[in-house]
Amino acid sequence: MSTRQTQSVLGILGGGQLARMLAIAAAPLGVKTLVVDSAADACAGQVAPLRLADWTDFAALEKFAAEVDVVTFDFENVPADTAHWLAERVAVFPNPRALAVAQDRLAEKTLFRECGLQTPAFEAVDTREDLERALAKVGVPSILKTRRLGYDGKGQFRIKQRSDADAAWETLGANAHGLILEAFVPFERELSVLAVRTRHGDFRVWPLTQNWHTDGVLSMSLAPAPEVGALQARAAALARTLAEQLDYVGVFALELFVKDGELLGNEMAPRVHNSGHWTIEGAITSQFENHVRAVLGLPLGDTSARGCSAMFNWIGELPDATPVLNSVDGHWHDYGKQSRPGRKVGHANVCAQDAKTLAARVAEIARALQRQDQAAPALQVL
Amino acid sequence: MSTRQTQSVLGILGGGQLARMLAIAAAPLGVKTLVVDSAADACAGQVAPLRLADWTDFAALEKFAAEVDVVTFDFENVPADTAHWLAERVAVFPNPRALAVAQDRLAEKTLFRECGLQTPAFEAVDTREDLERALAKVGVPSILKTRRLGYDGKGQFRIKQRSDADAAWETLGANAHGLILEAFVPFERELSVLAVRTRHGDFRVWPLTQNWHTDGVLSMSLAPAPEVGALQARAAALARTLAEQLDYVGVFALELFVKDGELLGNEMAPRVHNSGHWTIEGAITSQFENHVRAVLGLPLGDTSARGCSAMFNWIGELPDATPVLNSVDGHWHDYGKQSRPGRKVGHANVCAQDAKTLAARVAEIARALQRQDQAAPALQVL
Repeated sequence: MSTRQTQSVLGILGGGQLARMLAIAAAPLGVKTLVVDSAADACAGQVAPLRLADWTDFAALEKFAAEVDVVTFDFENVPADTAHWLAERVAVFPNPRALAVAQDRLAEKTLFRECGLQTPAFEAVDTREDLERALAKVGVPSILKTRRLGYDGKGQFRIKQRSDADAAWETLGANAHGLILEAFVPFERELSVLAVRTRHGDFRVWPLTQNWHTDGVLSMSLAPAPEVGALQARAAALARTLAEQLDYVGVFALELFVKDGELLGNEMAPRVHNSGHWTIEGAITSQFENHVRAVLGLPLGDTSARGCSAMFNWIGELPDATPVLNSVDGHWHDYGKQSRPGRKVGHANVCAQDAKTLAARVAEIARALQRQDQAAPALQVL
Repeated sequence: MSTRQTQSVLGILGGGQLARMLAIAAAPLGVKTLVVDSAADACAGQVAPLRLADWTDFAALEKFAAEVDVVTFDFENVPADTAHWLAERVAVFPNPRALAVAQDRLAEKTLFRECGLQTPAFEAVDTREDLERALAKVGVPSILKTRRLGYDGKGQFRIKQRSDADAAWETLGANAHGLILEAFVPFERELSVLAVRTRHGDFRVWPLTQNWHTDGVLSMSLAPAPEVGALQARAAALARTLAEQLDYVGVFALELFVKDGELLGNEMAPRVHNSGHWTIEGAITSQFENHVRAVLGLPLGDTSARGCSAMFNWIGELPDATPVLNSVDGHWHDYGKQSRPGRKVGHANVCAQDAKTLAARVAEIARALQRQDQAAPALQVL
């Protein structure tokens, strides 16, 4: 038997659905995956070898680093120390600095402004007195958030009037990593831009995605976002500036608000992102495949959309798959996870050549699953 | 933690590239895969748990049967005894009778004729005298083939003139499973129809694929096959009749010759098939996903083509991936196997909205890889 060039091995910290979909995308590229997670039932372990360890088990991480060619993340809150420690031993993408900036709402929003992306008004809050000063500047309604470790609406307190300040401080004031007070923006729509940059600086964006959240968690996405006009080029340029500032390698998502027709930066996710799940069937190259290509130093694939797509996010438990499986160009994505309230357990992509056909398919699925509330906002703009 | 309905487990006998691509397609449907192969480096083992056992290790197979909901095949030459033994313990699709017919060229061609599908002239050959009688009926040029265990041109001897009979008999005469002499048909083109039938009798076909072989191994495919006219409906009807005769469940391929504008049956592959690999990106639902859906009793997905597709088969070793990765809508499929002469190690799918664009992409890749010979026949009809 002759030999082939050894297959590259991609190490992923975190074994959730993002690692699972990365592993599925990596295999056809000839890239093996090795996943690290502290949970034996991490769902990526169904499609790739799973190493059980936590983020501070440096003996296990040492072994892991020796077995992989590149390390990337399924989970953005990997401790900075772990990321730095790994980066001294193996290529880590995105780099630890980019990860650190994206982990900190204050650093992130400061960078947005440096890159020319406006944001809602914000102020750092470390003490109860800071909160009063910040409220005087930012006003109400506003949102007090932990600077770090928040996601999907967690670690947030909505301040409707000044008298809510005590309750907000009681809930979040003990947070060791500091807080940030952000103005509540009555935005017209939520968009995200998915972007990817390679080790060689090649850069691409997918068409803008429009998103709807329920209780802070993504509920529906639509792509390409309808009627974005010049916002597409503007978002692409901002994403590129941001990526270059951070020497970012891999896929990231930039969540944006549209207010008075202008973009405001909400947050950056330094990884493949829920609002890009439509790309699996809805784009020529998915966010998962392009992330693997980017971090392995391979050329990027085309990011054009195939027609238009909607994504239903399944939270807590999966509905009956039948209406999606029966829909023409309906695609089911079960993450193989146990049901649990608030947990992301799967999604469905529904694609069509035109918006009218897509609307009919989405409406039919929503009706069959009694999910009209979930689909209604997307159907309004289709 | 609440629970979800337990995930179905699909057992696959054989752990090659077909099992690998089935496992990748099964995961998003929430279906776990368990693969059995006797080789520890079976490439499906990179994306699914791999159980080491051979086809006669009934202790291992007993355990396997208890752990899976449905059994299917990556390898069509699983012994009939093994298939029957398993079918007494667990649902096996396709059923052992369908497998047995497809394993035997004589039974297969006899069934084709019963279903109204003409075939090249053929005669069973068990003795040297049979061969003379068969040659008198079938004539030359003709091909002596083993009835069983042949694939990719293996187990065949081309008889150009009557005096080749001794050499043919010397090469193949000792075959325990008998032989078949088939007329050599100077066909105009080779087509295949991929079809799928569910446990409930739902049936679909993909658009006809045109195929080119080199040294008996598939080299290029093009789909939808250009200018097939009424042959599409004719092939679909024949495939349906065949599937119903066999109570077939799952995907199968029917390889066809076109001679004087008519279809002739060459052989049937009772599994997902190399000539259907274009469906991964080239069809709304791939052969792999629909096979999983069919054997699990889920509704079938749409089998329409997205534009048109070409598939380059990579035999022996992989070429440089770069030209394919750089091609718009070019998709790389590395099976994670070691190089070996004659071995199928990967393929590339190239898609486009129209034939002219596809031709340009295929020509560009062929030029970059110096594979003009491989692409030339497909480019002639694009």
